[in-house]
Amino acid sequence: MKKVTLSNQLEVSRIIHGHWRLLNWNLSTKELTELTQSIIDLGITTFDHADIYGNYECESAFGKVLKEKPELRNQIQIISKCGIKLISEKYPNRKVKTYDYSYDHIIHSVENSLKNLETDHLDLLLLHRPSPLFDPVEVSKAFDDLKSTGKVTHFGVSNFSPMQFEMLQSECNFGLITNQIEISPYNLSAFEDGNIDFFLQKGINPMAWSPLAGGEIFNPKNEKGKRVLDELKMVREELGVMQLDTIIYKWLLKHPVGIIPIIGTGKLSRIKNAVDSLEIEMTDEQWFRIYIASQGEELP
Amino acid sequence: MKKVTLSNQLEVSRIIHGHWRLLNWNLSTKELTELTQSIIDLGITTFDHADIYGNYECESAFGKVLKEKPELRNQIQIISKCGIKLISEKYPNRKVKTYDYSYDHIIHSVENSLKNLETDHLDLLLLHRPSPLFDPVEVSKAFDDLKSTGKVTHFGVSNFSPMQFEMLQSECNFGLITNQIEISPYNLSAFEDGNIDFFLQKGINPMAWSPLAGGEIFNPKNEKGKRVLDELKMVREELGVMQLDTIIYKWLLKHPVGIIPIIGTGKLSRIKNAVDSLEIEMTDEQWFRIYIASQGEELP
Amino acid sequence: MKKVTLSNQLEVSRIIHGHWRLLNWNLSTKELTELTQSIIDLGITTFDHADIYGNYECESAFGKVLKEKPELRNQIQIISKCGIKLISEKYPNRKVKTYDYSYDHIIHSVENSLKNLETDHLDLLLLHRPSPLFDPVEVSKAFDDLKSTGKVTHFGVSNFSPMQFEMLQSECNFGLITNQIEISPYNLSAFEDGNIDFFLQKGINPMAWSPLAGGEIFNPKNEKGKRVLDELKMVREELGVMQLDTIIYKWLLKHPVGIIPIIGTGKLSRIKNAVDSLEIEMTDEQWFRIYIASQGEELP
Repeated sequence: MKKVTLSNQLEVSRIIHGHWRLLNWNLSTKELTELTQSIIDLGITTFDHADIYGNYECESAFGKVLKEKPELRNQIQIISKCGIKLISEKYPNRKVKTYDYSYDHIIHSVENSLKNLETDHLDLLLLHRPSPLFDPVEVSKAFDDLKSTGKVTHFGVSNFSPMQFEMLQSECNFGLITNQIEISPYNLSAFEDGNIDFFLQKGINPMAWSPLAGGEIFNPKNEKGKRVLDELKMVREELGVMQLDTIIYKWLLKHPVGIIPIIGTGKLSRIKNAVDSLEIEMTDEQWFRIYIASQGEELP
Repeated sequence: MKKVTLSNQLEVSRIIHGHWRLLNWNLSTKELTELTQSIIDLGITTFDHADIYGNYECESAFGKVLKEKPELRNQIQIISKCGIKLISEKYPNRKVKTYDYSYDHIIHSVENSLKNLETDHLDLLLLHRPSPLFDPVEVSKAFDDLKSTGKVTHFGVSNFSPMQFEMLQSECNFGLITNQIEISPYNLSAFEDGNIDFFLQKGINPMAWSPLAGGEIFNPKNEKGKRVLDELKMVREELGVMQLDTIIYKWLLKHPVGIIPIIGTGKLSRIKNAVDSLEIEMTDEQWFRIYIASQGEELP
Repeated sequence: MKKVTLSNQLEVSRIIHGHWRLLNWNLSTKELTELTQSIIDLGITTFDHADIYGNYECESAFGKVLKEKPELRNQIQIISKCGIKLISEKYPNRKVKTYDYSYDHIIHSVENSLKNLETDHLDLLLLHRPSPLFDPVEVSKAFDDLKSTGKVTHFGVSNFSPMQFEMLQSECNFGLITNQIEISPYNLSAFEDGNIDFFLQKGINPMAWSPLAGGEIFNPKNEKGKRVLDELKMVREELGVMQLDTIIYKWLLKHPVGIIPIIGTGKLSRIKNAVDSLEIEMTDEQWFRIYIASQGEELP
């Protein structure tokens, strides 16, 4: 599979495997190890985590795979995130969900992720969400120390606006190499809020979470969803492709900004649907038809 | 008539004649030639086209004038645009209206415009609308080749946001010299979306399409339109001017950002109304009264 | 009291006293002099005015204090503003409220403020509101002359967007050192419109007007107000603090961007409530609970 080098710094696979719902897959460590090996064999070498996924348990589940088969570690790139403090029985003192980008929390969260993931470094650390109580000076200090101790090799953000990206970048001593945001045929907000324009300007590859809109595209609950599904089906027929997922991933992959979709399924067959999208062609008009179906009106 | 030099590069007249509705004027080539000569005599030397105007036929209609009277060419500046693909019986394969900023489409569209306009170069090429499927690298390559072959001497955009302008500019090897957007007493969006602020910062003269809001101002269909019309009439009376158009154009011309209105009428008398606006004075308070009437509430 | 040096240029007190409602306090010059001395004794040395406050009369009222006790002048910093033209019986020719940032108006307005305030210079001049009819070149010329004649030593803006700030900054020969905007637990717009992100990026301390939301927080008229009040009361109880104001000011002071609240009361006891906020601690979670109460939904 083709690789992408984020900001000339970190090579990741053109498609990323997301571990958000890893616990839902109900796999034994052995099964998850086999799945992981199969995914790597398909060319997907980048895995997306966060401290909070699975109520703080997904990292450990994957860590068991890496403990079982440590030779996998240098074949893959691990992404994790920090900054959200969930309400959880693990943290009984918390009254509400908050964000925390203090130096101490960032350092502590990464050290915990490393322990859970049974690894000595993250290839990429993302700040999970922008916070109204944010101090870029403090974040930059944490990044410096994580970098110099080798605990994290590259840094980025998630769900940031262009202004927030520039604000943090202006304080950081090294480039933020990605912004992981929601993009799908169902969710076009990145095209409207300036993020896609910003990425094109800065040469940043965004990562796309919820590329299938959390299943909304396959089981539409409103008119917009039905329009998108109908159009996807028509394009699928025109292209002679078997699966709708393949069309959706192709729609993301075709964009010149270089969107890297994060695939959150534990089923190998569906992961193959995504990989198939790298081999098909889609015309500009087909791309626009899906975009227009989502918008619900013709272009101005 | 006063001239304006866009970004210290291209001199255009303070008012531009727009050929959007040229076919509706039902003029023979002889009549259009006479009108064009009269407009030039008034000092308006810049003419605004697009490939798609009049279902792809306006450029040819004006091209006949230039073929008839080739000595006009070096007295005028020709603007055209590219990037929109209309549904048209001329392009039976198109299913939906889309945008196309591929290298091939830009080059081909310009070459077609040159042929239709019976000229060897455009003085200014604008990208007609921002596109969700946009690659500034490809656009920049097309601009380079159009410039080096002398087919286009200057470049700009239309209907772009500040972020989109900066995104394309960051890839281009020469300055984008204008952004043609909708501005009128009825449509204040450019004052609210950051575009006017951006132009002031960058020293860019915007061109204003639909300065009369497509006739909405003269035949108001809602409360906002009525408020604007009433205020314009009061200011007209105070200034002792005959025509409402004159007040509207003055409102645009008075702004320090240097708005260049595009006048889309084929009637010489109405063009003269616009030219008259260059000679009258309007107080700041009169300018604000029209602005406030459009907003529907007093300033904060 | 701690001082803050705005953009490494002007030292102001961590809390500012605002004279917006000075006339409503019904104080004699002697009483206002005593109040001013008490405020200075508390460490608040910066006083916020505008030409228009109190229908153009607040500056004079404070000027009488400075005339009475001229030795106060070099212990304090005076802020004033210009640019709004109110409808007032003092200006019978005005038909509507407008803005005026012409060279002449700015110079004249400042000279008038100096006369009213019985001083020879302003420490900080702010443009009161962004204007749709704004010429940064003209403003910059006025700033240059006010600076070179010593009438104003520092410059800033009020209620500007990041784009408007950058637009004016790009024309100015010296840095704009603050943007005075509305911020309170009730009004979170600065967190949503990019202003807080922009200030963090540029190292700008904003000043907060209406930190108590004009009394809305104490006498809530809607659900949002009630939620905020309830949460403030809970935090007050947890912190063992007497007054709600103290909690609100602490909420502002705690933010890493360095918000400088402007306190608009003439009651010394309430000013002391504000000063008390400098001595208490608030946890991040308490800060977030107030923020969330205002938003009305948990964080994403």
